[in-house]
Amino acid sequence: MEVTRTNFKDSLNTVYSAIEEADFLAIDGEFSGISDGPNVSALTNGLDTPEERYMKLKKHSMDFLLFQFGLCTFTYDQAESKYVIKTFNFYIFPKPFNRTSPDTKFICQSSSIDFLASQGFDFNKVFRHGIPYLNQEEEVQLREQYEERRSQSNGSGNPSYISPNSNKGPGSIPEEHREYIGRVDNVGLISYRFPKGLHVETLETEKKERYIQISKVDDEERKRRERQKQEREQVTFRWDSSLFPLSPTQGKLVVGHNMLLDVMHTIHQFYCVLPEYFLYCFLRLLDTKLMATTQPFKELINITSLAELQKQLKESPFKSPKVVTAEGFPSYDTAQEQLHEAGYDAYITGLCFISMANYLGTFLTPPRAHIPSQSKLIQPFVNNISMCYYILYNTHPTAQYFNVILYTVQHIILQ
Amino acid sequence: MEVTRTNFKDSLNTVYSAIEEADFLAIDGEFSGISDGPNVSALTNGLDTPEERYMKLKKHSMDFLLFQFGLCTFTYDQAESKYVIKTFNFYIFPKPFNRTSPDTKFICQSSSIDFLASQGFDFNKVFRHGIPYLNQEEEVQLREQYEERRSQSNGSGNPSYISPNSNKGPGSIPEEHREYIGRVDNVGLISYRFPKGLHVETLETEKKERYIQISKVDDEERKRRERQKQEREQVTFRWDSSLFPLSPTQGKLVVGHNMLLDVMHTIHQFYCVLPEYFLYCFLRLLDTKLMATTQPFKELINITSLAELQKQLKESPFKSPKVVTAEGFPSYDTAQEQLHEAGYDAYITGLCFISMANYLGTFLTPPRAHIPSQSKLIQPFVNNISMCYYILYNTHPTAQYFNVILYTVQHIILQ
Repeated sequence: MEVTRTNFKDSLNTVYSAIEEADFLAIDGEFSGISDGPNVSALTNGLDTPEERYMKLKKHSMDFLLFQFGLCTFTYDQAESKYVIKTFNFYIFPKPFNRTSPDTKFICQSSSIDFLASQGFDFNKVFRHGIPYLNQEEEVQLREQYEERRSQSNGSGNPSYISPNSNKGPGSIPEEHREYIGRVDNVGLISYRFPKGLHVETLETEKKERYIQISKVDDEERKRRERQKQEREQVTFRWDSSLFPLSPTQGKLVVGHNMLLDVMHTIHQFYCVLPEYFLYCFLRLLDTKLMATTQPFKELINITSLAELQKQLKESPFKSPKVVTAEGFPSYDTAQEQLHEAGYDAYITGLCFISMANYLGTFLTPPRAHIPSQSKLIQPFVNNISMCYYILYNTHPTAQYFNVILYTVQHIILQ
Repeated sequence: MEVTRTNFKDSLNTVYSAIEEADFLAIDGEFSGISDGPNVSALTNGLDTPEERYMKLKKHSMDFLLFQFGLCTFTYDQAESKYVIKTFNFYIFPKPFNRTSPDTKFICQSSSIDFLASQGFDFNKVFRHGIPYLNQEEEVQLREQYEERRSQSNGSGNPSYISPNSNKGPGSIPEEHREYIGRVDNVGLISYRFPKGLHVETLETEKKERYIQISKVDDEERKRRERQKQEREQVTFRWDSSLFPLSPTQGKLVVGHNMLLDVMHTIHQFYCVLPEYFLYCFLRLLDTKLMATTQPFKELINITSLAELQKQLKESPFKSPKVVTAEGFPSYDTAQEQLHEAGYDAYITGLCFISMANYLGTFLTPPRAHIPSQSKLIQPFVNNISMCYYILYNTHPTAQYFNVILYTVQHIILQ
C-alpha cells in the first residue's frame, strides 16, 4: 500500500492495527545518498569495529534524506500455517509547514540517484506527495510558535501588528506625524465601516501564490471561523499518546537487511539527534545479513546481498515460507523483482528471516516446521552482541527502536 | 525543444546554428535550492554591495544543482519586422560516467523543491534523462585516465592486470608457490585453448548489473572490436574546437532576469571554480530586472518580478513585440503561463528586453519601432558599471560568458 500525504491521515489506523496484530515487522529505507566523504566501500568496510562504523556513518551519512520508508508486517495464521502480510511504502519529503518552519536541506549523491532512477524510482511522487515530518525538537519549537501565535491573536481574529520574527516592539509615532497618521488610520476606518467585524486570513493557491482573504462576518461567524482555523492547525500536531510509548515488553522483533543505516536514519530524521558515542542496550532487532553470515547458515550461504540471499533460501535445505497478502493490500510477485522499492525489500527481508528461522526448527526432535519470532531459537541472532553494530544507546526509554517506528508513523505532520 | 541525454547528440547542430544565427540570447536556470546558510531574503538583500552579494552567493549557493538550463535565441527577420525564436530546455544531471569518475554531491532545499513540485516540474526527467557534464578540470582528469587506460591496454585488447586505482605494481610470487601458480595459470590455459584470441569487455545491463563478456574472435575481429570500443569512448569527449573559443567581437548580447545566480552557476558547474574576489571586466550581459529599475523605465514599472514585468510591458506606453516560433520548434502560449520552466522564463525575459529596447526607440526623431540588440541605445544597460553586480573577473579570455554557454553546450558529456 502506498502512503503519501494525500492518503496519510486516512491510512493511519490501518497502519496502527497492522503493527498491533503483527508477530514481527520488517523494514527498509531508500536514501538520497550514502556518503558525503569517503567512497561507499570505505564507509562500510567489513573490517571496521562496530564503533568505527557507527562513527563513520554518523559523520558522513546523516545529511542524506530517507525518502522512502518500507514497512512489512507479518502475522502468523496458526490454523492455516501461513503468514499474512501487509506492506506499506511511505513516501517522505520535508515539505516546509509554513514560512517560519524549518526549511530542511539534504544532500543527493549522483550515483545513488542514478541507481534509483535506473530502477524506475518515482522522484516526482516523493517531491510532490511525500509526507512531511518533524523530529522531536522541531515539533516542540513549532508547537511553541503556534501557541505563541494563538495567545497573541487572543481569539480576536485580528492579525498581530508585530511580525513573529521581529524583536522590535511597535514603533512610536513622532509628534509631527500624528495628525497625518490619524487621518489615514485604515484600521480605524475599517472598524468604522464594518462595525460587526472582519475575518482576516492569509491563504495560498495551489501554485503558491499567497493572498489575503478578508470576509465581512458578524461576531458569531468570526469566532466560528477562528475555531475552525485553530482546529485545522491543531491536526498538524496530532499525538496519539495512548499508543506511545509502548512498554518494553510489547516490543516486537524488527527485522532488516544490513539495517544499521536504516536504523540510524529513522532515529536521526524522525526522532532526535544521534548520540555522540556508540554503546549497547537491549532491543529486539535482527539483521538478516548478519544472521546469514552466522552458523549454521554461514556454511550454506555464499552471497549475502538481499536478492541473492532470497534466491538461495528458496533452495534445499531451506524452504520458501507460505505467505499470503492480506485482503485489500496489493501483492508482490517475487518473480517480477521490484528490488529497491523499500516496501518490496522489507517484504523480501521478512521472507529471508522466516526461511532461516524455520530451518533452525529442523534441528529439534521432533523437527518443527514453524519457528515463531518469539522463539528462544531466534534469540542468539537478536542483538547479537559479538557483532552488534546496530544498537544505539539512549537513556530515554523511548529509544526502543520499535517505538521509533511508531513515533515515525505518528509524528509525521498531517497536512 | 526539450534536450535530454537521449537526444542531446542529435540536437547539438540545431543548438549551434540557433546560437550562430541569433541576434541575442536569453537564458534562465532552475536550481535545487538557493541558500544553505542565511534565508533567501537575507542572501539577496537589496542593500548589499555587489561584492557582498557575490561573496554571499559564492559561499551559500554553489552546492546546489543547476538542473534545468533554458536558452531562447532571438533572430530578427528584417523583411517581416518580427523576431523568430528557438527555445531549448536542457535537463542536466551529473550522472557518473563510470565507477572512477566524479560522484557529484549536491544539496536540495526543501522549499525550492516544494515550489518547483507545485509548478509541475518533472524531477523524473532530470534524474532519469538529464545530460551529464564535467567542468574543465574534471574533463582534463578524465581524459588523462582514459589515455592511461588506452596506453596500458596498448591495443592488444587484454585487460590490464593492475587495477586503475591501485598504486601497487604486480606482486612477486614467492619461490615456494611458483610451481603451483605455473600449474593453474589460467591465462596460459586460455591462450592455449583459444590460440586465435579473445575479446574481453565489461558491460552493464539497464538495471546496472555488471557482467564480463568474453568472445572468441580472430585477430582481425578482435582489433575491429577494440577500435569500436575506443570510438565509443572517444565520443564522450567530443570537443568541437572550430567553434570554441569565439573571438570577443563575436560575443552576442546575453539577456537574463536577475541573472547573477544563473551566471555564477553556469560558470561554476560547467566551466571552472569561481574566482575568489569580485572584479569587473567587459562582457555583453544585460539584466532585465536591472534595466526595469533604471531610468526611463523606473517611473513606469512598479513590480519587477518576471511575471509582473511581462504583464506591464504589454500595456501602453510599451508594445508587445512581434515574435514567432521557428518552424519545427514547439511554441509557447503566454496566456497559459508556464513560469519556472527555464526555457519559458528565458523566452519571457527576451520579450521583456525587446519591449523595453523598442520603447527607447520612441525617443528618437523620427521614432523607430525596432531597436536592435547592437544599438547604442542599449549600451547604457549593458554591464551597467554603477550597479554591475554580475560581472566576474577571470584572466582567461574564455571567461566571456557567451563562450561559457557554448562551452556548456559542447562539454556536457555525450553518452
